[in-house]
Amino acid sequence: MRALVLEKKGELSLREIALPLDVGPDDVRIAIHTVGVCGSDVHYYTHGAIGSYVVRAPMVLGHEAAGTVVEIGSNVETFKVGDRVCMEPGVPNLSSRATKLGIYNVDPDVRFWATPPVHGVLAPYAVHPAAFTYKLPDNVSFAEGAMVEPFAIGMQAASRARIVPGDVAVVVGCGPIGIMIALAALAGGCSKVLISDFSAPKLAIAVQYAGVVPVNIGKESLADAVAAATGNWGADIVFEASGNPKAFADLFNVVRPGGAVVLVGLPVEPVALNVPAAISKEVRIETVFRYANIFDRALQLIASGKVDLKPLITGTYDFSDSIKAFERAAEGNPQDVKLQILLSGEKG
Amino acid sequence: MRALVLEKKGELSLREIALPLDVGPDDVRIAIHTVGVCGSDVHYYTHGAIGSYVVRAPMVLGHEAAGTVVEIGSNVETFKVGDRVCMEPGVPNLSSRATKLGIYNVDPDVRFWATPPVHGVLAPYAVHPAAFTYKLPDNVSFAEGAMVEPFAIGMQAASRARIVPGDVAVVVGCGPIGIMIALAALAGGCSKVLISDFSAPKLAIAVQYAGVVPVNIGKESLADAVAAATGNWGADIVFEASGNPKAFADLFNVVRPGGAVVLVGLPVEPVALNVPAAISKEVRIETVFRYANIFDRALQLIASGKVDLKPLITGTYDFSDSIKAFERAAEGNPQDVKLQILLSGEKG
Amino acid sequence: MRALVLEKKGELSLREIALPLDVGPDDVRIAIHTVGVCGSDVHYYTHGAIGSYVVRAPMVLGHEAAGTVVEIGSNVETFKVGDRVCMEPGVPNLSSRATKLGIYNVDPDVRFWATPPVHGVLAPYAVHPAAFTYKLPDNVSFAEGAMVEPFAIGMQAASRARIVPGDVAVVVGCGPIGIMIALAALAGGCSKVLISDFSAPKLAIAVQYAGVVPVNIGKESLADAVAAATGNWGADIVFEASGNPKAFADLFNVVRPGGAVVLVGLPVEPVALNVPAAISKEVRIETVFRYANIFDRALQLIASGKVDLKPLITGTYDFSDSIKAFERAAEGNPQDVKLQILLSGEKG
Amino acid sequence: MRALVLEKKGELSLREIALPLDVGPDDVRIAIHTVGVCGSDVHYYTHGAIGSYVVRAPMVLGHEAAGTVVEIGSNVETFKVGDRVCMEPGVPNLSSRATKLGIYNVDPDVRFWATPPVHGVLAPYAVHPAAFTYKLPDNVSFAEGAMVEPFAIGMQAASRARIVPGDVAVVVGCGPIGIMIALAALAGGCSKVLISDFSAPKLAIAVQYAGVVPVNIGKESLADAVAAATGNWGADIVFEASGNPKAFADLFNVVRPGGAVVLVGLPVEPVALNVPAAISKEVRIETVFRYANIFDRALQLIASGKVDLKPLITGTYDFSDSIKAFERAAEGNPQDVKLQILLSGEKG
Repeated sequence: MRALVLEKKGELSLREIALPLDVGPDDVRIAIHTVGVCGSDVHYYTHGAIGSYVVRAPMVLGHEAAGTVVEIGSNVETFKVGDRVCMEPGVPNLSSRATKLGIYNVDPDVRFWATPPVHGVLAPYAVHPAAFTYKLPDNVSFAEGAMVEPFAIGMQAASRARIVPGDVAVVVGCGPIGIMIALAALAGGCSKVLISDFSAPKLAIAVQYAGVVPVNIGKESLADAVAAATGNWGADIVFEASGNPKAFADLFNVVRPGGAVVLVGLPVEPVALNVPAAISKEVRIETVFRYANIFDRALQLIASGKVDLKPLITGTYDFSDSIKAFERAAEGNPQDVKLQILLSGEKG
Repeated sequence: MRALVLEKKGELSLREIALPLDVGPDDVRIAIHTVGVCGSDVHYYTHGAIGSYVVRAPMVLGHEAAGTVVEIGSNVETFKVGDRVCMEPGVPNLSSRATKLGIYNVDPDVRFWATPPVHGVLAPYAVHPAAFTYKLPDNVSFAEGAMVEPFAIGMQAASRARIVPGDVAVVVGCGPIGIMIALAALAGGCSKVLISDFSAPKLAIAVQYAGVVPVNIGKESLADAVAAATGNWGADIVFEASGNPKAFADLFNVVRPGGAVVLVGLPVEPVALNVPAAISKEVRIETVFRYANIFDRALQLIASGKVDLKPLITGTYDFSDSIKAFERAAEGNPQDVKLQILLSGEKG
Repeated sequence: MRALVLEKKGELSLREIALPLDVGPDDVRIAIHTVGVCGSDVHYYTHGAIGSYVVRAPMVLGHEAAGTVVEIGSNVETFKVGDRVCMEPGVPNLSSRATKLGIYNVDPDVRFWATPPVHGVLAPYAVHPAAFTYKLPDNVSFAEGAMVEPFAIGMQAASRARIVPGDVAVVVGCGPIGIMIALAALAGGCSKVLISDFSAPKLAIAVQYAGVVPVNIGKESLADAVAAATGNWGADIVFEASGNPKAFADLFNVVRPGGAVVLVGLPVEPVALNVPAAISKEVRIETVFRYANIFDRALQLIASGKVDLKPLITGTYDFSDSIKAFERAAEGNPQDVKLQILLSGEKG
Repeated sequence: MRALVLEKKGELSLREIALPLDVGPDDVRIAIHTVGVCGSDVHYYTHGAIGSYVVRAPMVLGHEAAGTVVEIGSNVETFKVGDRVCMEPGVPNLSSRATKLGIYNVDPDVRFWATPPVHGVLAPYAVHPAAFTYKLPDNVSFAEGAMVEPFAIGMQAASRARIVPGDVAVVVGCGPIGIMIALAALAGGCSKVLISDFSAPKLAIAVQYAGVVPVNIGKESLADAVAAATGNWGADIVFEASGNPKAFADLFNVVRPGGAVVLVGLPVEPVALNVPAAISKEVRIETVFRYANIFDRALQLIASGKVDLKPLITGTYDFSDSIKAFERAAEGNPQDVKLQILLSGEKG
């Protein structure tokens, strides 16, 4: 069928490509409706690789997707044709040691959409295990459904933080992931979230949410802002969402004694951490890799109205304009949080 | 000074009584502004005792209080005269084993206001350790400050539940504590809270809050309502807030496999629990006794606007009308959540 | 093949029966070497049912088993023919919500050996998923391998207790499960374990292990013994391993403020619990249902020498004498902890 | 009284010095019997400072102490004259926010023996709060009592690791603290502990304990040893006990997916951590600063016989030979783990 194919670094085509469509007994087939453009998709487009994942053969992009079930496998009892759904893009080995422990996100054998050599879903149809497919509540749109994947990273961060109700949090970095973390932390029990960045336009997006306190670190010190907000005690939780090595230096200055630092942003190389400062406050440091057992609870929060992701969708393109969407995303406009591509008119 | 004194069961006086006013080096003296009427105050009034705590001598009532610092001890650096504050009514032995562990609420030596033989604070002034006194944020009123104590019980329940963001909760019993738990659970990370009661007026109060789903168990089965809300999976967390032995029978029918039941309501005697059902789902059961390390985070949530307790204040009385307030509270009107008494005009 | 078949209540045969032997791609086939006789096997034999599980058709007994891999499925990379193994008798639906969470023991769809209508493994061969099969370390015998299943229950209890190193524990009930819990608690971090029972012979078995303190509750009060051992503070953890409703009354008298009670023994009906006492100490109550993710760590402790289960094997029978083994087990001799049956000579 | 005084860097005297001896109402006075020589004492002696803690005035050394109660304050009910005790050297502000949370070790106001400007206890008597004094069980000697302090660091590490029974651990660095961690981890639930160092004599000390597996990283790769011991899965917990920046590079290679790294060794400056590797395995990182609520449980483990610290005492000196003890300790002989000084004959 016709799909958005990354031929090689810098070269996208919207063309026919053979994709597997056999529906196994535990699978469903989904007509894709909406797909979000993720920073990783863009990075494969612009760089041809992320770390050790190198695009060596044409690969379909896209892993933030929602659609409609059009066929169900023989064992599937939890879905019926016509169900509106979103999908978890990583599928682990169900028999692995990590999966049995419930931490299937760190199963070394996970196959993840649009991560070489696995194709993504910027295509009219996809086949997926029912166990990693989630029904959209009636009041959750396809556009919101396609936002669950990036929001799930924020939710995983908020879960691993082990928020105690009323905690004050800091999020370092106000990109798309930083905002997702801030929203998940607020919905997940924090009383307020200070979010820091150099970019005023990015902070302007975050500040439209109640409970978010912007800190423009081009103009004021994050340490001062946190001290003022916490009576010199420090934040209960500090989320690192920038991946910028420079940002790591300050983390242990702004966390309280006995607090937690949660590392989400992925630096390229080892980073200097102020271990003596961390030890003197006996800080707990958590790290976050994708998500596990999050999609259903993310959907609950969206359906309940506690989390509104719609203001973060800053552009929508027809499938036929997919390449334009990627070109715009590659520009890195600070006012863009999420661009989405609609496949709803496609018939394969 | 003049105080509201419970002379004995059923007999209240507003009269002069000698109360200690020496400010120790770690203490502050507070001019009391607002005091809430608690169910336990009313129970001492109507029954003369709660369990083994028997009123054997005249005792000042009241333990939900806010006011203004008027004097500080020689070691106190965290407050100044004029600070608006609320107070934690239980003071543990700071050197005890439980306190060192951070669980000072279960220190057997806790002295708790208006619990025989310790006087409460329905009086113009009180002396209290600075460590158990909390500054009110500028946007938190005295009336809200005096609501922190009952809300703290809900917060302790929400903390001990170890909510994972997006959890679905059930609260059994829609009295004042049930509502406090529901609000704390929602602010603390739950996506929605089903709250059950036989009383339509009580449910009507709770349902004014977004995220609360009322279940009138005179008309529908709680088990059915939870099954429908969770796709037959069960609630992640079930809070028991009624203390009614009959309510305990259903708890393990509505919780999910691996979920948690949190017992807050205090039954008078041992209660039959469906231990086989609890075991077959490997349920975790938490119990809640007052609160520890909660007041500061409760204030954060109130100040941030995530929790609005003002609609729960259903009547306010002058100090001179204190006895009327207790008489009304003793009627148990289901439309009353919290009555408060104002001492602000008193000069001691 | 020839197997030990429970025809109906009270009637055992050693006879030919058709058992599935197809090895699926993720399975292994095991030549059974040793099978332990469990209290549940005996209960099916003597009563024909356990709760709602009723033997309605002839069923092979046995679920505590060790043996040798004789055939591997096409996907299996973790085993080779000749590997000595033990097996986890419950196999969940790998795609279920509970399994994805890592709590596959509470998956409602678990199929468990020798639980109607699923056959057990008192037979020469069994086919089993490789993911629920565990290699025996070289220094762990088949007899010990067949002890892993009952020990795993003790390990699950010790895991859910969340022992802090040095905790003092109490185990109520000195039957086979009580002893398994005591050993797991000691290996798992407790400094000592007081174990209570009325039966001097049972206590005599437990006391051969260092760190176990027997309390004969026919002669002394458990509450007094715990008070003496803990300076009137109470035990950090109390494990209920008797299932006897009378034993539940004392649990909250012997646990410390803020401690944990772990319910393992399965009473037949709801049980009266002293909820007011539990609340006043803010006790955490955990429940235990079988085990998940335990077999590998149980084997580590046995292989390391920290846990020696061999003294608990109090009788060994040839397969041809299986019925004698069950008759002896049904007598309930307090000096018997575990009887085992050897199939090593069988050729199917 | 006569005490071991560090006059300034490199200069020790055994001389008269005025020390406070007033016994407050919550204090006890202790006749010191045994004091261990700690690496930090030696570091003050050889360098005159540790980080920002600089010896600016003569200071008595010593903080690992055991002795006998000779006087009790008016409020003290938990001790009597003649009780044999050991003491926790850090005393927090009992009213501080950290102390109320139960994490008094990170209270910024802690006063810690032999940390400038606070005197240590290499002197005949010390006055100490009863709440930070612990009775020695009858079968625990003064020499063992003086070992509780260094062992408590290992115990804090084992506690913060949240060991699940049967975990396999690695300890990087086989100095005194590394050995303490290994013993605490084994007593605290680990099945085995691989301990790595370049020094064969240090490893020879550790290997006398059952469950310790030495890895001489001058001869073999730690990553290979861990892979072999865990079937290529990785260790559940990795403790960093060297403080050596080079050692930090390997931590995330040897930990399993979803495992924990516990940082105990204190590097002087920020250290490069392989954050990308930590994130890809979603590792939890804990840090350890001294200890809180550990002494009582450490004593339980010593008294039970699960932990034997006596083989680690490699030299004992009379008080009059204190300076010789420090000179030997300063040599850093790899065969020395702990030197102790006896004050038992002193009469003050």
